[in-house]
Amino acid sequence: MIAQPGAGSPAGANVGSAAGPLSGIIVVDLTRVLAGPFCTMLLADLGARVIKVENPRSGDDSRAYGPFINGKSGYFIAQNRGKESIALDLKNPDDQAILHRLLRRADVLVENFRPGTMARLGFGQESLKLLYPQLIYAATSGFGQTGPYADRPAYDIIAQAMGGIMSLTGHEGSPPTRVGASIGDLGAGLFTALGIVSALHHRSRTGEGIAVDVAMLDSQLALLENAIARYYSTGTSPKPLGARHPSIAPFEAYEVADGHIVIACGNDPLFRQFCRAVGHDQLADDPLFATNTKRSENVVALKAAMEAFLKTQTRQYWLDLLGKAGIPSAPINDVEQAINDPQVRHRKVVLPLDDASVAPLEVAGSPIKFSAYPVPEKRPRAPDLDEDRARILADFP
Amino acid sequence: MIAQPGAGSPAGANVGSAAGPLSGIIVVDLTRVLAGPFCTMLLADLGARVIKVENPRSGDDSRAYGPFINGKSGYFIAQNRGKESIALDLKNPDDQAILHRLLRRADVLVENFRPGTMARLGFGQESLKLLYPQLIYAATSGFGQTGPYADRPAYDIIAQAMGGIMSLTGHEGSPPTRVGASIGDLGAGLFTALGIVSALHHRSRTGEGIAVDVAMLDSQLALLENAIARYYSTGTSPKPLGARHPSIAPFEAYEVADGHIVIACGNDPLFRQFCRAVGHDQLADDPLFATNTKRSENVVALKAAMEAFLKTQTRQYWLDLLGKAGIPSAPINDVEQAINDPQVRHRKVVLPLDDASVAPLEVAGSPIKFSAYPVPEKRPRAPDLDEDRARILADFP
Repeated sequence: MIAQPGAGSPAGANVGSAAGPLSGIIVVDLTRVLAGPFCTMLLADLGARVIKVENPRSGDDSRAYGPFINGKSGYFIAQNRGKESIALDLKNPDDQAILHRLLRRADVLVENFRPGTMARLGFGQESLKLLYPQLIYAATSGFGQTGPYADRPAYDIIAQAMGGIMSLTGHEGSPPTRVGASIGDLGAGLFTALGIVSALHHRSRTGEGIAVDVAMLDSQLALLENAIARYYSTGTSPKPLGARHPSIAPFEAYEVADGHIVIACGNDPLFRQFCRAVGHDQLADDPLFATNTKRSENVVALKAAMEAFLKTQTRQYWLDLLGKAGIPSAPINDVEQAINDPQVRHRKVVLPLDDASVAPLEVAGSPIKFSAYPVPEKRPRAPDLDEDRARILADFP
Repeated sequence: MIAQPGAGSPAGANVGSAAGPLSGIIVVDLTRVLAGPFCTMLLADLGARVIKVENPRSGDDSRAYGPFINGKSGYFIAQNRGKESIALDLKNPDDQAILHRLLRRADVLVENFRPGTMARLGFGQESLKLLYPQLIYAATSGFGQTGPYADRPAYDIIAQAMGGIMSLTGHEGSPPTRVGASIGDLGAGLFTALGIVSALHHRSRTGEGIAVDVAMLDSQLALLENAIARYYSTGTSPKPLGARHPSIAPFEAYEVADGHIVIACGNDPLFRQFCRAVGHDQLADDPLFATNTKRSENVVALKAAMEAFLKTQTRQYWLDLLGKAGIPSAPINDVEQAINDPQVRHRKVVLPLDDASVAPLEVAGSPIKFSAYPVPEKRPRAPDLDEDRARILADFP
């Protein structure tokens, strides 16, 4: 039984990534662009050694995607920091032999080709299972490894559109609205990472490497929250609600003198506390607004009543006042404001990259903090194409 | 060293949940409402036994949230299926003793109280670590366990607003737009689950139970994708783009005769293939649209040129034609369409609930498929308050 082939071996030593609960785990990463690379970056942040295998011509497609910072792709850097790179032509027998050297000692293989591609290259999951019974084979794809759409191409917006989230996002009557980050890819990447680490747990009990199959479309369905229940409750599909919550009020964006702020009161006592804080106790006594159910029914009137006084003062005025009163409220931060927020700084969520060539570029790190591992002060750089070939070949003889 | 206290013991037997890689793991779940319950539902879907501890008065707040289906909360069901329930008053010494009986054999405790609450109840992480060195203590909160905002209350929209995602979602000039599912909560729940399973891996190597600390705000920053790089590249915060991708074109929603469809061509050959399929080869030859960079610069002109012919035919016409040509394209499904899609049905993502009292309610399941575990045909029901008390007390003497 090969329970932890990478643990403690030189081949499993972290080079680019920080120490973490997955230290010693070796991930062979055949993924490109976003869903797969996001998944393996999460694994690197958790301490795994991630060896990115790229095509020798130009590497990961996303090396050519903007935005560019001093000639380097910020898109690529943001998803590939902390990994090592080796260029292999998977159709070339010599390079295939090198991939086999890696897989012999690897814990995890991750790929996001279209289903069938790996088998055509001679690296199908079934044949690898015979050669490397310890290996966890994880595939992330648009539609999954099975089903009528398995062979179809997909991008983030395809998953967002088919999975229902676009039908819930935006303002009613406005043109279609995509979630402003690629949640179709990122969701699948997160679920794939969760599947891989769960498979590591399975292997530590049984010695068996298993296959993990995650689809972008499936992941979107799993992130619809209570929208499916709302459909079954009413018999009609829920509509987009702008910034509003479907069943809690107040819970949305409100206009103030110089823009908008968000305010959320999840229960009746909190709403009463809000009314007292803003000097409008009578709102809480109004039968129209007495309970969350009533406020949800009369949400348009509630918003008008609130904005009547909110508009008379600025964001800063209200955020100070509501903050002191303990009312959940916040500014709508742009990216610059979000990454410079004192709490974000304190938590070291966004950190400088350890790469002078793109300074002062910063990147978001893993949001998972463990008592056993300190948060690093910098994030490791992203590799140039084939940069780590010599060390990788030496480590995997 | 207590490596796997729950594995194989009767106390770790799955009651509500399916077999999976986490079978044998016992999770004591003190969470309420959304981020925490979503996390522990993911763990139940992975095979863990999740024991939900609720206050005896009314249980999880979300039992009172709509939509209601035959008097039961669809909101609660959607996040709590497959768990067991016991009602404990955490301020009552007798009930505290019962919680200690659970924790003695548990692998994981998850809570989403405001920081400090658990310590005031006598169950702070430091003191539990001394009593139960094998226990993984996971906390998910609005702002995390540390930093200037640690004590602040938070809801989904607070995290979405502060974390930057709202500034990227919607159409420029339109009122603020929230992502139409509670990605502030769901993101934190996913990262917490990933942290917990990673901590299980750490424990299997070291015997040590560690603490996991995840914040909703931090999780939003980690889901900004390349928006931070875009900010550093230009010096200004990115704006919302409607349904458009920031650096790929065509990649958005397009108007057709009877609504909209999405089309995405991630590289130049695919765009040429699209132009041929729709009978407009000249578009691919136009210098304005010759490369992805040019198409991104001229994205408004590109959209106008495409919609000029797209508007002449229906959604079905174009989806059939583009589908046959292998061009990534999709309808914008509402929830009813999404859950009834043939691929979604084939993948068993959305499944009936094993609860006749709310039939025909269906729920989304885990999107992670493992070769070692079959996908169930139904999802287990959600517990009534305190429903599993007798069995739990017998299992944890």
